[in-house]
Amino acid sequence: MLQLYFFPMACSLASRIALMEAGIEARYHLVDIWTKKVLEDDSDFWTVSAKGAVPVLVLDNGERLTESAAVLQYIADLKPELGLAPRPGERDRYRLQEWLSFVGSEIHKAFLFPTFWYSDDAAKAAARERIGKSVSIAAEHLAGRPYLVGERFTVADGYLTWSLLLLGRGGVDIAQWPSLVNYVARMQERPQLKAAVDIEMRLRKTVRV
Amino acid sequence: MLQLYFFPMACSLASRIALMEAGIEARYHLVDIWTKKVLEDDSDFWTVSAKGAVPVLVLDNGERLTESAAVLQYIADLKPELGLAPRPGERDRYRLQEWLSFVGSEIHKAFLFPTFWYSDDAAKAAARERIGKSVSIAAEHLAGRPYLVGERFTVADGYLTWSLLLLGRGGVDIAQWPSLVNYVARMQERPQLKAAVDIEMRLRKTVRV
Repeated sequence: MLQLYFFPMACSLASRIALMEAGIEARYHLVDIWTKKVLEDDSDFWTVSAKGAVPVLVLDNGERLTESAAVLQYIADLKPELGLAPRPGERDRYRLQEWLSFVGSEIHKAFLFPTFWYSDDAAKAAARERIGKSVSIAAEHLAGRPYLVGERFTVADGYLTWSLLLLGRGGVDIAQWPSLVNYVARMQERPQLKAAVDIEMRLRKTVRV
Repeated sequence: MLQLYFFPMACSLASRIALMEAGIEARYHLVDIWTKKVLEDDSDFWTVSAKGAVPVLVLDNGERLTESAAVLQYIADLKPELGLAPRPGERDRYRLQEWLSFVGSEIHKAFLFPTFWYSDDAAKAAARERIGKSVSIAAEHLAGRPYLVGERFTVADGYLTWSLLLLGRGGVDIAQWPSLVNYVARMQERPQLKAAVDIEMRLRKTVRV
């Protein structure tokens, strides 16, 4: 059985969404991302991954895969019939990779990461200066489309939805982009995506980390 | 013929390395990344890409692909027989995606980007605080391996090599990681990679942007 190391509402939520949308059962390990402890047995998360970051997906052979872009494609490819990623070789597969990279670098690493991890206000301000332009690119793309790539939900939609849910906590109100408000609402109508978010919202409130 | 919009020594160098290692002829457009002008005709780069960032790869059908992780995989897959990326479906393909994401987010977006684009010193300092740990992960991985993934050069090696060449300009001396010094030297023994770097180093010096 696959195992996912996660922190509630961190970017590992995108991996949980992918697993649940794919109907893949997995074992979930909650990591206190500040103390780097695995909660269930107080073990050292650094021994799970030298990066000390979630997500970590433990494959059936024990190998550990990190980085959302890789983990999400791996999960999608386990159930190719569901179309959670366009098939390898199709033109749209590169579009999926393009969006995974965009969310990971421009929204997550360039904005959410400094916002939640840096203590310095100037560093946060520098990150905030650019986020509007990045988010606008996604907003414009989604103004005339139901999904990021092609005609169906992909793992990139789960990843973007997670990042948009976090923007508000980072002080960026997505109400200024109606296409995104609409998109997030539609995504949350998906039973599996909604269940994944609900689980982690609940955990975020009840687990003291 | 493929076309690549680039800025000398920016991350688009990884795409040039991939094209040259693949033996694919392409037309290269130099972009002044600060004024967002395409140098050859003073045209507006914003009309090429709403992101205003390199690389942009123009495909044979006119579509434009952005984000290094996507562009590099696209180029590699044009010549599957060269092994510049493990074939889709192979376990190592996800390792390639993992490294592309790591270089793109942890080295490029989390460190090189703020270092070269932010004016605020505190923001640069916040970025610098973490880069050593990230680089160490690559250094440790490469201590016992010739390449990032599998037994041969992939587009991820071109991307990492670019990022390591830039670290010095960002004030991080890679001499503290002997495995990386050795790796960069070995990579630069590759005639095509070296030619790509030489072209852009020369352009960087001669073009006033």
